[in-house]
Amino acid sequence: MVQIGVLNGPNLNLLGTREPALYGRTTLADIDARLAEVARELGITLRSAQRNGEGELIDLLHGWRGEVQGVVLNAGAYTHTSLALRDALAAIAVPFVEVHLTNIYAREPERRHSMLAAAAIGSICGLGAAGYEYALRGLVAHLRERTPPAAA
Amino acid sequence: MVQIGVLNGPNLNLLGTREPALYGRTTLADIDARLAEVARELGITLRSAQRNGEGELIDLLHGWRGEVQGVVLNAGAYTHTSLALRDALAAIAVPFVEVHLTNIYAREPERRHSMLAAAAIGSICGLGAAGYEYALRGLVAHLRERTPPAAA
Amino acid sequence: MVQIGVLNGPNLNLLGTREPALYGRTTLADIDARLAEVARELGITLRSAQRNGEGELIDLLHGWRGEVQGVVLNAGAYTHTSLALRDALAAIAVPFVEVHLTNIYAREPERRHSMLAAAAIGSICGLGAAGYEYALRGLVAHLRERTPPAAA
Amino acid sequence: MVQIGVLNGPNLNLLGTREPALYGRTTLADIDARLAEVARELGITLRSAQRNGEGELIDLLHGWRGEVQGVVLNAGAYTHTSLALRDALAAIAVPFVEVHLTNIYAREPERRHSMLAAAAIGSICGLGAAGYEYALRGLVAHLRERTPPAAA
Amino acid sequence: MVQIGVLNGPNLNLLGTREPALYGRTTLADIDARLAEVARELGITLRSAQRNGEGELIDLLHGWRGEVQGVVLNAGAYTHTSLALRDALAAIAVPFVEVHLTNIYAREPERRHSMLAAAAIGSICGLGAAGYEYALRGLVAHLRERTPPAAA
Amino acid sequence: MVQIGVLNGPNLNLLGTREPALYGRTTLADIDARLAEVARELGITLRSAQRNGEGELIDLLHGWRGEVQGVVLNAGAYTHTSLALRDALAAIAVPFVEVHLTNIYAREPERRHSMLAAAAIGSICGLGAAGYEYALRGLVAHLRERTPPAAA
Amino acid sequence: MVQIGVLNGPNLNLLGTREPALYGRTTLADIDARLAEVARELGITLRSAQRNGEGELIDLLHGWRGEVQGVVLNAGAYTHTSLALRDALAAIAVPFVEVHLTNIYAREPERRHSMLAAAAIGSICGLGAAGYEYALRGLVAHLRERTPPAAA
Amino acid sequence: MVQIGVLNGPNLNLLGTREPALYGRTTLADIDARLAEVARELGITLRSAQRNGEGELIDLLHGWRGEVQGVVLNAGAYTHTSLALRDALAAIAVPFVEVHLTNIYAREPERRHSMLAAAAIGSICGLGAAGYEYALRGLVAHLRERTPPAAA
Amino acid sequence: MVQIGVLNGPNLNLLGTREPALYGRTTLADIDARLAEVARELGITLRSAQRNGEGELIDLLHGWRGEVQGVVLNAGAYTHTSLALRDALAAIAVPFVEVHLTNIYAREPERRHSMLAAAAIGSICGLGAAGYEYALRGLVAHLRERTPPAAA
Amino acid sequence: MVQIGVLNGPNLNLLGTREPALYGRTTLADIDARLAEVARELGITLRSAQRNGEGELIDLLHGWRGEVQGVVLNAGAYTHTSLALRDALAAIAVPFVEVHLTNIYAREPERRHSMLAAAAIGSICGLGAAGYEYALRGLVAHLRERTPPAAA
Amino acid sequence: MVQIGVLNGPNLNLLGTREPALYGRTTLADIDARLAEVARELGITLRSAQRNGEGELIDLLHGWRGEVQGVVLNAGAYTHTSLALRDALAAIAVPFVEVHLTNIYAREPERRHSMLAAAAIGSICGLGAAGYEYALRGLVAHLRERTPPAAA
Amino acid sequence: MVQIGVLNGPNLNLLGTREPALYGRTTLADIDARLAEVARELGITLRSAQRNGEGELIDLLHGWRGEVQGVVLNAGAYTHTSLALRDALAAIAVPFVEVHLTNIYAREPERRHSMLAAAAIGSICGLGAAGYEYALRGLVAHLRERTPPAAA
Repeated sequence: MVQIGVLNGPNLNLLGTREPALYGRTTLADIDARLAEVARELGITLRSAQRNGEGELIDLLHGWRGEVQGVVLNAGAYTHTSLALRDALAAIAVPFVEVHLTNIYAREPERRHSMLAAAAIGSICGLGAAGYEYALRGLVAHLRERTPPAAA
Repeated sequence: MVQIGVLNGPNLNLLGTREPALYGRTTLADIDARLAEVARELGITLRSAQRNGEGELIDLLHGWRGEVQGVVLNAGAYTHTSLALRDALAAIAVPFVEVHLTNIYAREPERRHSMLAAAAIGSICGLGAAGYEYALRGLVAHLRERTPPAAA
Repeated sequence: MVQIGVLNGPNLNLLGTREPALYGRTTLADIDARLAEVARELGITLRSAQRNGEGELIDLLHGWRGEVQGVVLNAGAYTHTSLALRDALAAIAVPFVEVHLTNIYAREPERRHSMLAAAAIGSICGLGAAGYEYALRGLVAHLRERTPPAAA
Repeated sequence: MVQIGVLNGPNLNLLGTREPALYGRTTLADIDARLAEVARELGITLRSAQRNGEGELIDLLHGWRGEVQGVVLNAGAYTHTSLALRDALAAIAVPFVEVHLTNIYAREPERRHSMLAAAAIGSICGLGAAGYEYALRGLVAHLRERTPPAAA
Repeated sequence: MVQIGVLNGPNLNLLGTREPALYGRTTLADIDARLAEVARELGITLRSAQRNGEGELIDLLHGWRGEVQGVVLNAGAYTHTSLALRDALAAIAVPFVEVHLTNIYAREPERRHSMLAAAAIGSICGLGAAGYEYALRGLVAHLRERTPPAAA
Repeated sequence: MVQIGVLNGPNLNLLGTREPALYGRTTLADIDARLAEVARELGITLRSAQRNGEGELIDLLHGWRGEVQGVVLNAGAYTHTSLALRDALAAIAVPFVEVHLTNIYAREPERRHSMLAAAAIGSICGLGAAGYEYALRGLVAHLRERTPPAAA
Repeated sequence: MVQIGVLNGPNLNLLGTREPALYGRTTLADIDARLAEVARELGITLRSAQRNGEGELIDLLHGWRGEVQGVVLNAGAYTHTSLALRDALAAIAVPFVEVHLTNIYAREPERRHSMLAAAAIGSICGLGAAGYEYALRGLVAHLRERTPPAAA
Repeated sequence: MVQIGVLNGPNLNLLGTREPALYGRTTLADIDARLAEVARELGITLRSAQRNGEGELIDLLHGWRGEVQGVVLNAGAYTHTSLALRDALAAIAVPFVEVHLTNIYAREPERRHSMLAAAAIGSICGLGAAGYEYALRGLVAHLRERTPPAAA
Repeated sequence: MVQIGVLNGPNLNLLGTREPALYGRTTLADIDARLAEVARELGITLRSAQRNGEGELIDLLHGWRGEVQGVVLNAGAYTHTSLALRDALAAIAVPFVEVHLTNIYAREPERRHSMLAAAAIGSICGLGAAGYEYALRGLVAHLRERTPPAAA
Repeated sequence: MVQIGVLNGPNLNLLGTREPALYGRTTLADIDARLAEVARELGITLRSAQRNGEGELIDLLHGWRGEVQGVVLNAGAYTHTSLALRDALAAIAVPFVEVHLTNIYAREPERRHSMLAAAAIGSICGLGAAGYEYALRGLVAHLRERTPPAAA
Repeated sequence: MVQIGVLNGPNLNLLGTREPALYGRTTLADIDARLAEVARELGITLRSAQRNGEGELIDLLHGWRGEVQGVVLNAGAYTHTSLALRDALAAIAVPFVEVHLTNIYAREPERRHSMLAAAAIGSICGLGAAGYEYALRGLVAHLRERTPPAAA
Repeated sequence: MVQIGVLNGPNLNLLGTREPALYGRTTLADIDARLAEVARELGITLRSAQRNGEGELIDLLHGWRGEVQGVVLNAGAYTHTSLALRDALAAIAVPFVEVHLTNIYAREPERRHSMLAAAAIGSICGLGAAGYEYALRGLVAHLRERTPPAAA
């Protein structure tokens, strides 16, 4: 059965209470709960984690190697500064979809460039917590299109 | 009842036969058909159009003024060059979500900057035809969150 | 008798109702009415048009060739992106004055550079609808200074 | 009664004899005379000055604080280099319109960026001495639109 | 039989009378007549068109899809601003050669970058109307080198 | 009672022995001792910490949320590279003052841009260990100006 | 006895009444009074001046040569545009500390670069009038560390 | 009788065997042979040379001074780095046409800028060995248009 | 006896299995084994470590302070983003040589700039695992040239 | 008789005592004395002045209008920041030669660009006080070459 | 038997006496002698040359075509300016390793970009004369890894 | 006795006949003749040469090593492109003065940056052939200031 990793980067542990005018009041737990429903619908399993450290995120991705077939990634601010994270994603050799809660193109210039986007399948931003669901659905669709249909 | 405009820009009329290795074999008609299903599910109506001319797209948006409450927009190459289109979207004063079939961040540098993204609610790229569906769902969710619930 | 063309670009058809906090409530018809008064005072005739398409604006300028002796031009967003419009103005070989309703230097960076300004006689921005009147007066003064006085 | 300051920057004292092919043969005195007529027509009074020093221009603006309700400003070359002048205009907290005799966008690249324009109501360039008149009219119109009409 | 499209962009309809010091006195009709002779010599047929609108040029290219095996293109000012035109050329999937009457590298900086050149087979500039003939010959030679010779 | 966090970033644990010609011989313990005196004088309490990891600094700031009313921050080299740290400061929603022991504007170009400065109340650099004291005093003054005086 | 010069640049004469939302209501006289107290505490004397002209500030610094052992400098907008002022500070060969009332890194981009900072001992910004006091204390500490202790 | 110089720069001596996938299998001797035919047709004579050294190319051009009336130039990599070659062409004061075998706009960024193009009559790239023929024809046409027709 | 630290950064723990087409099949253990042989030959001892976190690498370097006389460093992606690591190397005040398995100049632009290189003795890239050996030999040679020969 | 103005800008009044390691120990008076000798040799007269203010330098140049036939100018730091000074030189319409005591290309980047150089006849830097003499000789030679010889 | 070319560019003939503080006292002859020993050890032969001219270096590389299987290249200053040399290396189609005696990343900015590095297998800098030895060893290892073992 | 080398770069052999409107009608022989007079006056000897090749100029400078005590250099176009020439000047370790006949700051942008200027004592441009004389005088003065006077 397909397993997808859902990985959240720095400061996302505070989601729901952190700058709610910007990021909303939905928590990571709410998002995980919703994604669990979607996963059941799609017939897949999920692994989910959040870390504040770049090295810890890399360690975690390494641990998922061979265990997940794709990653839904909100790398938070590391999106814009971390080449090491892009290398980690390449190292575990699975496709990923980038998600951002806010519209990063309507914020500070530092957030307009993603170190990750060119290596992703695609990205979604500005659609709030729903963006995770769409990213998960899009990632699974991508994996299934490239997978030979179950024999029959 | 909420009505959403789905607007496609230059060269998207050829979708399905144009550079299929890049854009896939799904046609605009296929996308419209799928969006029609989603619209029924969401209890909304759709208007859909495609134009190759920048001025024609602007004319079309002006014509939708007061008729649609939001726009799903794939402006194709005008995404990167048209300030006039951004002004037209501001002029009709409805929220919009930007969609791209391909991951524009993994293509030529000219496609890395969007003239529209900062004015959008959000954007989706690289998820193929499914991106339209997610954009539509995300846009409707955005409109409903900001709308007082129907009385009861 | 001197004839001047007054040409308006994309989205200016919506003037008066489009983003009124920014562009005011005066319509193009109001502006044309005021310019007609000024034209009578100056002893000239006017031709006036608005188009949303870059190609249509060019077609229109070509049609004015040999008919107008100068142009008052608010090219809207094409100011910042259209080299073809500058070429069309050079092709019909008449002087023009650029007008903008808003102060383009106090808006987004994309609006700070004009593709047209270097080819114009001069430009006016930020003075609202009155800017058209000043542009017309300035253009006619420019033409008359270079014209030998009517014989006597 | 509304009083407007007309302030001219470096080298404008030589107007009429300085590079006449570029700046024309009208002198500052001619301009002041014409503006005095316009002021009478508009029912306002004027104060007018020219200085070559950046500090002197700032001193002068400080002295006008509370005395003028707006400024018509041709800062000459300081337009492109003086942040201190912009601060002085902010310090005296009155609106201003920027004027240039020549079309600064058709000259050297150093003249294409104005340090002042973003803080102005608007700007006029390339219309020669007439630009001062239009700037004055535009400024007074701006002040009056924002002023409650005299009672009665 | 090989058919080649010859497409001209904005303002080229005025060729011969537009800025003759720069563009010469040869008209588009003259060029078409000369190209017809060359086509006869080469044993090919031609389709030729000129449009001022970006969208119209795209429509026209779409209409030529499957009908022409290559395009000689003078996109005029759109050369420097139109990504949509490049996409249209990719969409109809035929090789093209870029032509410019003038030496674009000896003109304004805006004309030094072509949005199209990287997607072309090659480009010719500064050789006036003769550039069209060379482009046509070069394009046909390119097509024939890649075509197995007619059996014998 | 007001509590302030004093947070030091990478390599500052070696202060006093690390590149003493540049950073001096004062240790972090010396600085903490001096700040404790100042805190007593100001009637506040302090929390102080140093970490070498970006993620650890973020974890630490999260832990201070709701416990400190402001932060004195010397983020060391992360000043110039960490957007995640700026987000963490925004997430805990307290004002902070940036301190640097050396004059970062007289060093390598990489140190001339701070990712944090725009989000800070203010910053101090080049005054050595005394900079911490001034930052603390400035921060407390800032907090008190905005706090209604204790009743009486 | 050590004497320190306190020098203020353009528009600072209006401090307290100029843009109070930005610069506060403290006047230069208030700041001088506070610095006089600090000077007494530190056992030093002060000279203080403000000028709006770049040349006048340079003249003033030249006049302080040999009379002051250091300078506290708020050069206002000249901070960002005056190389001549940096040369004047080098010419009188005394250390200086740069002060800004506001956080210049949270304002317009033009204010993010200081022509003076690299030549200063250090700089302080965003701490309002208190910044002067800290600058003075920091400067005196700097001078004393480098001075051999009074004999005995 | 008109004489034209055909000059080839560094590495072009290896044409035909050097990177044939990129540059083809035609040799310089083949090109010279074809140009000789064209020259006979045009009633002109040719001089042809190839050098790998920048100084040698300059020496060669100096030697052609007064002997050739125009130059067909493929400067190879010096196109992008040699200002001295441009000066040499100006020094001998004859018109030249630039040729490149490959489409330099579809290669590395270093090849996108030509030091020579602005001084040339025109340029041709991407049409392989045929480009030399077109360049020669274009150059001769250019020379003849500017030459009074032979008397009679 | 001289001791050298060999430090590897993020994702290098996966060497041998990570993107083998790019990084090869040699593991870090293989490299350490080879370096141990070289160390015996050179009469030195080694310490070796790998970490994925920037802070952990800094902690590790601090721990090596006074214990190693030089460092062979492959900082992986942190090479391009970590100023803190450069500071840590300066803080422990030993020379280091930078190694990269791949030719970083033939990869993405983000990898073309090293934050560390200017502070290193030298660097080696593109020679695969052998690069470590050369770096170690080069570092030891560097240390010995600067060390007075053992007496006798 | 030809009269030349020798004008010195900010901080040059301190020449001889200001940063002597950089600027030497020659004073302006020494330079003026030497230039007086050269002037006698050349049969011309001199006017010489130094000012620290940009406006004062402009006033001074205006005063020299019609009195001097050329200017030797060391504008000090204003060289790099003053467009107004360039305008003043154009306004008095005499040729000038730029002098710098030091080699401005071997100093800070801010000194590498001159606002004046493009408008000068030529410039001399790095030759110390002797540069003034060469500038004067070069300027007079320039004037005489363009002057018809005195009749005879 | 494998033959490797060792090629040195401009000014390297003076090695040992040229700027010895920077480049050391080892001569090219010393380096060649050491490389001869290494070649014997590796069972290969060497060809070695030095030239000051870009064209001469290209001529030399052309002469080595088909004779050497790889090149160790220290192109000196041409590293940073010569595209023609990169083309020559591509033309002879053998792998090469770039060597620099000094750490080019710790010198002037002009030396930070290599025109050659992206086309090399790898590069070594800052390790002095030993860098040549490592480059040679690395190059031979590279060749052998890709070569089927000699039959047996 | 002091000997100075006078070195001229590419295209300067044509001086006097090459673009005389720009470079004048004085030949190199005229300049050498005048410099010989100056040399006699100064009590020095000269060596003079001109080469078109970068490598030849380097060879020539190497040959002058130990023979000349300084160089007057007009490197022509290599001024702007040759780092190798700067290295050659450093290699022979004598001071040099840069000369240009024209005002390079009033020409194309490519001529505004000198690769050599930062390494020179100083530079002179725009003063025509007289610039060589001033450069020679300035260089000799520089050498003598640093040389103890001949004993007596």
